[in-house]
Amino acid sequence: MKDFFNVVTIEQALAFRSVFSVMEIEPVPLMDAFERILAESVQATENLPDFRRSTMDGYAVRASSTFGATENNPAFLTVKGTALMGEIPDFSIGGGEACRISTGGMLPDGADSVVMIEHTEAMDATTIEVYRSAAPGQHVIEPGEDFLKDETLLAGGRRLRAQEIGLLAAFGRDAPRVYRKPVVAIISTGDEVVPVTENPAPGKIRDINTYTLAGMVKACGAVPVSYGIIPDNGDSLHQTLSLALKASDMVLISGGSSVGVRDVTIEALSALPQTRILFHGISISPGKPTILAESQKKALFGLPGHVVSAMVVFLKIVKPFIEHLSGIKAPDSQNIRVPAHLSRNLSSAQGRVDYVRVKLKTIDGKLVADPVLGKSGLINTMVKADGLIEISLNVEGLDQGEPVEVELLY
Amino acid sequence: MKDFFNVVTIEQALAFRSVFSVMEIEPVPLMDAFERILAESVQATENLPDFRRSTMDGYAVRASSTFGATENNPAFLTVKGTALMGEIPDFSIGGGEACRISTGGMLPDGADSVVMIEHTEAMDATTIEVYRSAAPGQHVIEPGEDFLKDETLLAGGRRLRAQEIGLLAAFGRDAPRVYRKPVVAIISTGDEVVPVTENPAPGKIRDINTYTLAGMVKACGAVPVSYGIIPDNGDSLHQTLSLALKASDMVLISGGSSVGVRDVTIEALSALPQTRILFHGISISPGKPTILAESQKKALFGLPGHVVSAMVVFLKIVKPFIEHLSGIKAPDSQNIRVPAHLSRNLSSAQGRVDYVRVKLKTIDGKLVADPVLGKSGLINTMVKADGLIEISLNVEGLDQGEPVEVELLY
Repeated sequence: MKDFFNVVTIEQALAFRSVFSVMEIEPVPLMDAFERILAESVQATENLPDFRRSTMDGYAVRASSTFGATENNPAFLTVKGTALMGEIPDFSIGGGEACRISTGGMLPDGADSVVMIEHTEAMDATTIEVYRSAAPGQHVIEPGEDFLKDETLLAGGRRLRAQEIGLLAAFGRDAPRVYRKPVVAIISTGDEVVPVTENPAPGKIRDINTYTLAGMVKACGAVPVSYGIIPDNGDSLHQTLSLALKASDMVLISGGSSVGVRDVTIEALSALPQTRILFHGISISPGKPTILAESQKKALFGLPGHVVSAMVVFLKIVKPFIEHLSGIKAPDSQNIRVPAHLSRNLSSAQGRVDYVRVKLKTIDGKLVADPVLGKSGLINTMVKADGLIEISLNVEGLDQGEPVEVELLY
Repeated sequence: MKDFFNVVTIEQALAFRSVFSVMEIEPVPLMDAFERILAESVQATENLPDFRRSTMDGYAVRASSTFGATENNPAFLTVKGTALMGEIPDFSIGGGEACRISTGGMLPDGADSVVMIEHTEAMDATTIEVYRSAAPGQHVIEPGEDFLKDETLLAGGRRLRAQEIGLLAAFGRDAPRVYRKPVVAIISTGDEVVPVTENPAPGKIRDINTYTLAGMVKACGAVPVSYGIIPDNGDSLHQTLSLALKASDMVLISGGSSVGVRDVTIEALSALPQTRILFHGISISPGKPTILAESQKKALFGLPGHVVSAMVVFLKIVKPFIEHLSGIKAPDSQNIRVPAHLSRNLSSAQGRVDYVRVKLKTIDGKLVADPVLGKSGLINTMVKADGLIEISLNVEGLDQGEPVEVELLY
């Protein structure tokens, strides 16, 4: 019992993602599609825009009618009418002619550009002076300039931000196909853990991890379901695991991986149908004592009980598994690391990847990552932290001033 | 009509936030508190933890009993029993004594440190060898080490991340008081705009902005409500505005601020009870033609119709107003800017703040912000972008390689 019998690297742990299948696909009303993961590649069914649009309020003209126009030597144009919003103009524009147009209006045949209203003066109802030369195409969006027909708009596996939702709207995709959100069961274990509504007796502590893990599951776009607090007892755990496994796509057992209770967890997991233990320890700190099992093609994680360890394992291991189930394939602006410089020396043990909580500060206009030190049982260290930095497997430590990349904690 | 009669700077625009009141306060079940804004300052009602806890699986000892212990010269200790999880040990530890303890267990009286199980060997049922010297306090969390009684845990006005939810759980706050989420009405205007489910005739275009704005409202933690598409007609707009104003905390009118329809919007706004127009143009690009009105103490924005302009105005102006209503006071890790270097020269007009869309790339290990150029009527530029950079009011442009700060687009 002294050593973990199957310790894997982060890369080995993450490779087990391929054991599990991506969620089914379902249509979702476009209004509810924000932050869902697109499950299909979407092509442009037409040009966007499908007609020549004005980008300004002013006059649609043939550019050549304005060549050489200045404040002192304006071009005089005859106003033929107004291009009404949303309608096809029933006239065309020739040399020396213009028509009123608003932003988003359709240019009449013969017009190739728009003169801003600020660069004109109306002389009478049918004549304007133009004070600047227009270039062909000026203040105009050409058909297909935003997207060309048959162009790929969005690839599958992408998280939909506001602009992607807008793009789907532009092409009439009012019910895009997305991946179902994974349902993640959370089981808190430990004879010392009491519900949040109870006053803990000496030696006991309220259930922090169910709430912390539920928040992190939500931040991943998945659906957390709490199965309460289970005492360190194989039968109770096995029963709850069976229930949770049926009703969800992944199971997290909080506090089930420390030496004292690990055997109870392993036994309860092993009693599930078609189970195998995939690993049993990861070479990271904090978070080494982490278990991954597979039962009926679903992932079950045994997570450390220390809140910081559980959060780090969640971010570095569980989250990539949830993203895999969720169908995420494309890189995401949420995953961009913030470059900063380390405020002090940090030591690290070789042979494991260390994750250090940091607070970001701006000092002399430069972003500085200031380590928040403290034991991994202390939640205050996560509350103070803006992000995590990584010290790689074969690095002994980092020096003050060294560049680091900070993964933000949302 | 040539000029905007009341153009303000960004700072002047944002100063109008103080005209509007913060939302009411409501309790929320802790499981639903993720990303809500805390409306109260929360104090520690007890020490966390409230007892001396082990952070390791091993043996609780008096450190002095192990002084000088090595592999070759181990300390022999008598095992007095086991500190059961969640219980007060009914024995104490003296010199030369130890008890079994698991991570999170309560140390018995007399013990001041924990020896990891890896550094011991059990000789028989009541004797262990210890191979390393323990320091007092080693592998122990002292009472109050995470938080001291009466310490402020969290200040009001803070967005609750997973770790803050966990902290509230630790102190039994199962129904924290948070600010109500603002309800934001979205009215799309324009004779050229058709519903997303329709096939647009030539000259018409599907309603992009309702969906884009709804996504951005959600990203702010507020609740979007769509009031459909209103033609460029004062009476229809006034009726819809009256309805929306009653049922929501803020109103966004998309496409109501360009010169052609501005008067219709201003007239419809002015016909509402107790209205005043606060400004009418902001010195930013894109997004200059933006209107802010107040009616019955609620904010009504007239936003540009171009999708990029509307998004930039939302991020730089509307979002800070929503955050004000939402009660956000503390800085947030979501607002951290990513430092990068510009990939090319950028020019800018003086006298306005320019926002440029950028894609982030890593080149030679350095983060580079690559401008995504294109008209503000083109949604593809926002889909390609990871973030926005700012070119300040009195800067003529930025040079290739200059440091910039990128605001990420989630």
